[in-house]
Amino acid sequence: MANRKYKLCIVGFGTVGGGFAEQLANKKETLQQRYGLKFEVIAIADKHLGSIYDAKGIKLPKAIELAKQWELNILEDEYDAPEKGWNSVKTIKKAEADIVVEATWTDLVTGEPGLTHIKTALKQGKHVITSNKGPCAVAYDEVKRLAEKNEAYLRFEGTVLAGTPALSFIRENLAGCEIKRIKGIVNGTTNYILTKMEREEWSFDKALKKAQELGYAEEDPSTDIDGWDAAGKASILSKVVFGGDISPQEVNRTGIRDIDKEDIKETKEEGKRIKLIANVDKEGGKVKASVKPEEISKKQLLAQVMGTTNALLIRTDHLGQVIVSGPGAGKGETGQALLNDLLTIHRYSTKGRDIYA
Amino acid sequence: MANRKYKLCIVGFGTVGGGFAEQLANKKETLQQRYGLKFEVIAIADKHLGSIYDAKGIKLPKAIELAKQWELNILEDEYDAPEKGWNSVKTIKKAEADIVVEATWTDLVTGEPGLTHIKTALKQGKHVITSNKGPCAVAYDEVKRLAEKNEAYLRFEGTVLAGTPALSFIRENLAGCEIKRIKGIVNGTTNYILTKMEREEWSFDKALKKAQELGYAEEDPSTDIDGWDAAGKASILSKVVFGGDISPQEVNRTGIRDIDKEDIKETKEEGKRIKLIANVDKEGGKVKASVKPEEISKKQLLAQVMGTTNALLIRTDHLGQVIVSGPGAGKGETGQALLNDLLTIHRYSTKGRDIYA
Repeated sequence: MANRKYKLCIVGFGTVGGGFAEQLANKKETLQQRYGLKFEVIAIADKHLGSIYDAKGIKLPKAIELAKQWELNILEDEYDAPEKGWNSVKTIKKAEADIVVEATWTDLVTGEPGLTHIKTALKQGKHVITSNKGPCAVAYDEVKRLAEKNEAYLRFEGTVLAGTPALSFIRENLAGCEIKRIKGIVNGTTNYILTKMEREEWSFDKALKKAQELGYAEEDPSTDIDGWDAAGKASILSKVVFGGDISPQEVNRTGIRDIDKEDIKETKEEGKRIKLIANVDKEGGKVKASVKPEEISKKQLLAQVMGTTNALLIRTDHLGQVIVSGPGAGKGETGQALLNDLLTIHRYSTKGRDIYA
Repeated sequence: MANRKYKLCIVGFGTVGGGFAEQLANKKETLQQRYGLKFEVIAIADKHLGSIYDAKGIKLPKAIELAKQWELNILEDEYDAPEKGWNSVKTIKKAEADIVVEATWTDLVTGEPGLTHIKTALKQGKHVITSNKGPCAVAYDEVKRLAEKNEAYLRFEGTVLAGTPALSFIRENLAGCEIKRIKGIVNGTTNYILTKMEREEWSFDKALKKAQELGYAEEDPSTDIDGWDAAGKASILSKVVFGGDISPQEVNRTGIRDIDKEDIKETKEEGKRIKLIANVDKEGGKVKASVKPEEISKKQLLAQVMGTTNALLIRTDHLGQVIVSGPGAGKGETGQALLNDLLTIHRYSTKGRDIYA
């Protein structure tokens, strides 16, 4: 793999897939010089934009520019490619790619359409990188077995804290430690709302409205404020780190919808802050996962994580507590997660030769 | 490499080397089950304890027990091994090891004796893992070239924050990002002293004395309080992350010796805290490194890092600020760094097969 180009197929070319493609285009030279990474995007499939395939390589800047106009089928209509009009699954099957980039939307109940995309790719021995929380939250055991059976990598760093290292931090950087508990702020929207309610003394409704204006929360904000997004992340951590089998629906979950100005004020007076905390641990062989508001003393580092910033506190045997903190969402941030997954596959494939020392 | 045992040679069997050996002994089964790592320690060389070599494998619990008595030549005198009395260099040359664990003391001026140990091992194509700050601070370019030439890994995770991920965090987990600046608290002893001076309103001398009693500071405390230890770490970061060539002596360095109760009090009244901060960055192509006390607003996460805890704040293009925090010293913590280095070499050698997904 060291001296040839990876051929990539990108499925889902919206904010995340398109943002990742921009980083690929902008950093093409740096990636080759610094990491010895050579690549070509040969296929793009998007439900809205249409799909294109060119075994010789797609001109990324052109495809990115068209995608930004976000018109129905614009890729198929205006990009000159030898093959067009395949759907996502056909693209994954027929495009001769080494790595499939799965960047469609998250469905925490079915995992679809990402789950089918990922299974299709792995069955053919194609590596997969994804930022989609659905497939791993819903069917981690299944996709893991498929990856192992087909000797293909499935990397999904972006599913927990976007580009801020979380899964690779725990599994690779902390390898050798026993992980006892993970506790963290894993949803930026709710942390933003709670921050504004405390600092500006805003009502919940006002803070939510502002979060919606800024694009942090959807029009139907339930995913964030009822803790579903955090539950999906807790589910992934429970499965990947602790070998548990807790679905997002099985996470013990309370959102922040019922927190009012009075709660915030009282907690503040006690020298504490309310944070929406995800907790995952294993006690007596049983894996547990919860998401709920907790009052955290201001002396704790987690209480100092404000705005849209996320953080994980990881309790281990050899190190006691270790904390990692950074942004947990965003286009460039999630693109970075995918880029790092790509570089990790490259590094493993080449036995880490770019960093002998 | 996947199905055979790594043969390890441990050079330096004091707190760090011995502590690492304890983890190896305690976790032998877990390491095999979880990571597929099989190993045997075949040689131990220590200036004080003597050296032993057994190609069939040394009984670790016995060697650890003897070492704890810390009597001159006790290993040679009381451990029954086929070969004894080699010095460190001879052990590295003659022991048929795959990996040399370099755990001798730090010398930031000459890098010795670690530098000779590491060069000897790399020249023979033996991988090296080390927690010794000297060799990389003094001669990173040289050992890096040797590692590349001989296709051997040189891992030194423990040189910056002990077991708390620092170098691997930046180079592997943040791969794909451009690193713009690293700022951090990289010395636990000085952070402990500053914490006590603020929280307990102790004088510098009282806080230093307590740090010495607890074993955080040496009898001659200059390494810590004059910023030498932090400068060594800043030097390593400047070389490894930014490709600079700043020796520990060239780091712009001010310690905390002259900070008194008044300074602490005044800073506290301004809502700030004094922290000994290492700064490394690259501006206009020029790498710069400094270690000096800074007043940090309590609103900053770095100001909340108290006691012996360390933290790095890394500024990047794709992620803005990312923070990693945890213990920066200690026997188990440094052992964990070596263990993680060992697992990383294993993972690269086996192309990351233990985590296909």
